Amino acid sequence: MHMVDIIRRKRDGHELSADEIAYLVNGYLNGEVPEYQVTAWLMAVFFKGMSFEEVLALTDALVDSGERMDLSELETPAVDKHSTGGVGDTVTLVLGPVVAACGVAFAKLSGRGLGHTGGTVDKLESIPGFRTGLTHQEFVSQIRKTGICVAGQGAMAPADDGLYALRDVTATVESDPLVAASIMSKKIAGGAGAVVIDLKVGRGALFGNREQAVPAARLMESIGRARGVRVECVMTSMDQPLGNAAGNALEVLEAVKTLKGQGSADLAEVVIALAARLLTISGEEWEGPAAAAEARRVLEDGTALAKFSQWISSQGGDISFIDDPGSLELAPVTAHVKSESSGYVQSVDALAAGRAVQLLGAGRLRRDESVDHGVGGVFRARTGDGVSAGHVLATIYARDRAAAGEAVRRITAAYVVGAEPVTVKPLFIA
Amino acid sequence: MHMVDIIRRKRDGHELSADEIAYLVNGYLNGEVPEYQVTAWLMAVFFKGMSFEEVLALTDALVDSGERMDLSELETPAVDKHSTGGVGDTVTLVLGPVVAACGVAFAKLSGRGLGHTGGTVDKLESIPGFRTGLTHQEFVSQIRKTGICVAGQGAMAPADDGLYALRDVTATVESDPLVAASIMSKKIAGGAGAVVIDLKVGRGALFGNREQAVPAARLMESIGRARGVRVECVMTSMDQPLGNAAGNALEVLEAVKTLKGQGSADLAEVVIALAARLLTISGEEWEGPAAAAEARRVLEDGTALAKFSQWISSQGGDISFIDDPGSLELAPVTAHVKSESSGYVQSVDALAAGRAVQLLGAGRLRRDESVDHGVGGVFRARTGDGVSAGHVLATIYARDRAAAGEAVRRITAAYVVGAEPVTVKPLFIA
Repeated sequence: MHMVDIIRRKRDGHELSADEIAYLVNGYLNGEVPEYQVTAWLMAVFFKGMSFEEVLALTDALVDSGERMDLSELETPAVDKHSTGGVGDTVTLVLGPVVAACGVAFAKLSGRGLGHTGGTVDKLESIPGFRTGLTHQEFVSQIRKTGICVAGQGAMAPADDGLYALRDVTATVESDPLVAASIMSKKIAGGAGAVVIDLKVGRGALFGNREQAVPAARLMESIGRARGVRVECVMTSMDQPLGNAAGNALEVLEAVKTLKGQGSADLAEVVIALAARLLTISGEEWEGPAAAAEARRVLEDGTALAKFSQWISSQGGDISFIDDPGSLELAPVTAHVKSESSGYVQSVDALAAGRAVQLLGAGRLRRDESVDHGVGGVFRARTGDGVSAGHVLATIYARDRAAAGEAVRRITAAYVVGAEPVTVKPLFIA
Repeated sequence: MHMVDIIRRKRDGHELSADEIAYLVNGYLNGEVPEYQVTAWLMAVFFKGMSFEEVLALTDALVDSGERMDLSELETPAVDKHSTGGVGDTVTLVLGPVVAACGVAFAKLSGRGLGHTGGTVDKLESIPGFRTGLTHQEFVSQIRKTGICVAGQGAMAPADDGLYALRDVTATVESDPLVAASIMSKKIAGGAGAVVIDLKVGRGALFGNREQAVPAARLMESIGRARGVRVECVMTSMDQPLGNAAGNALEVLEAVKTLKGQGSADLAEVVIALAARLLTISGEEWEGPAAAAEARRVLEDGTALAKFSQWISSQGGDISFIDDPGSLELAPVTAHVKSESSGYVQSVDALAAGRAVQLLGAGRLRRDESVDHGVGGVFRARTGDGVSAGHVLATIYARDRAAAGEAVRRITAAYVVGAEPVTVKPLFIA
């Protein structure tokens, strides 16, 4: 088998065999297939696509490239949630405790952030003492004890990490078969029986609009059916940052506020909807309206907050920030982004806002970089809000004046304020 | 400027600026742009093509990546010839002396062979003492003294060597803009004022048929016009090997036979036609019919043979093989490929024959391999020839029995013998 022939066949629109795809993935992982051949193949896939059989074969090869979490010893089925990466996406930190408080195990292996999108592991690591590097057995014990565990992906589907890094620098991210195989390989390796995938749609997101997201959603649901994982995709708007906070510790604090009923309405709305879907497909006997009502109840009556506290503490985290938010370290320099005119917020460019926060140090451009947990931004005005000149639109947390100034400049540009009132589009697209 | 943005813009069908293309070529050459980004871009070019301005910018960037031969100090304009790579292509070794014998300087910088196609430098190096690594000044002196010089490409357009090596292993060779920029960069760097490019068409060749070759031909002629080089493309059939020999020393011996009027008719025919075109576009006052007649005269009356002898000797080669062919070392093991039935040769698969000869050691798979000058094959039966069972179709020269057996097996399979007489297609396609 020669890689150049595999590339040529894909280039010419032929269907590759499962053996050819496994050869490619394994050869890449063990260094026999050089990166410059992999990226030519990725670009050929971008243009020529893949049959469903090819996507399944790629998913399988990625799963087989690493370890696989075995959750069969759990008494109840576990659920998982994935997001395609947005700006200020604090959902997991609230959703997990809500689902666990409803009695369904929440088992999530998560990656680190890359580019302008954050990673749940980075966020959790802003809590002193919190451990994300767990063994297989620790992961399972943690779920059995508290009903929830979130840990780093470790050795799950390592070939996917490599392929994703190559896609990221060769403009081959936006390919449905590659997106679907990448996400589903991590989910299958993670061992959960049911997964809700939140496809972010909009300017700060992988998919520009609903039409672009639908085929990828169908593909992931089909892969799930073929491999015994119940998958349901939802689409949420990423036209502006979700919630108010972007930045690691800032998002942890926002999660606590939301669990206390003091957070932004859009974040709570997304959490309740996703929780309802997860409960419904969990295999337990939940139905939609009852599931949503139960999720709302545990969020509003403090049960989910207590679960959050138990979870963080159980994974080694210092929980004093829950009662005393000021105990979580934030960057020392703050600066305000103020509206230059009066009117209504017409739009907030989530992509530009995410990049500004990333440049403060909250995100990384390369996988081997570290992140600064204390920097970020709090977006105080949202699309549709009425503001007067001088109104604080956002607050920046930075390490120094220069970085703060640059972030203020970028986030000022991300806000568009105009005279006309604005009708806010619904958060849930489908 | 970011390479990932350049790739994305090409992927989406946008036109790249000359600055972007120069950034890519220079970044690749100095190691700032990794190969895995270059190959993704190459595949995007394969699918999206290039505007003429982009092709010109790529050609210029490749030329600027290395040295450039300055032939302006020659009293007469020099001409050059390029072939897109066929099997058993001995043309240059005969054409150069014919053109020089007609009084027009022949100045060729040539590459080494790769894959199943040979390289003129490899062929010449089978002559003991022949020097292909000349300085700029030696190259010019040699032309002034004998009217002909063929030397290695050395430091001309080195970025093209690298790009070609990447294209070769990523199925991105067959792209007109990449083919045209690659060939024309070498020709422009070589310094000749007029070039004939022989586009091989057929199964053993870069282009499968005439329709595929025409756009590349037009493109190279246009690049020539834009950069002050007169370019004329011809297309010749590579449905079967050209001439009778394939292999380095074997082709040198065939060149001598042809210069003595004892070679195969197809080779002499191609040489006379190309010589006529070169004389016509040389800038000297030749017209087509007179040029062809003069080329035929010098080939038939021994003038070109004398020029060949003078040239080889002047570049340091031992010319005793011209009078004593047995003095050129050939591999010791010979084997015959015999027809298994009686009838007519229906076809000879040039690609399969070329690969068989390459595997004997006459060619290389990687640029850093050496070649064996003494091995190869002589194809004694050509398409249309009548043969009886047991008739010798070809003779193999190999280093050992095992290699000879494998070559016999492959070349037997390359010959198709059938009952029906065959009408031979013309060698010149356009």
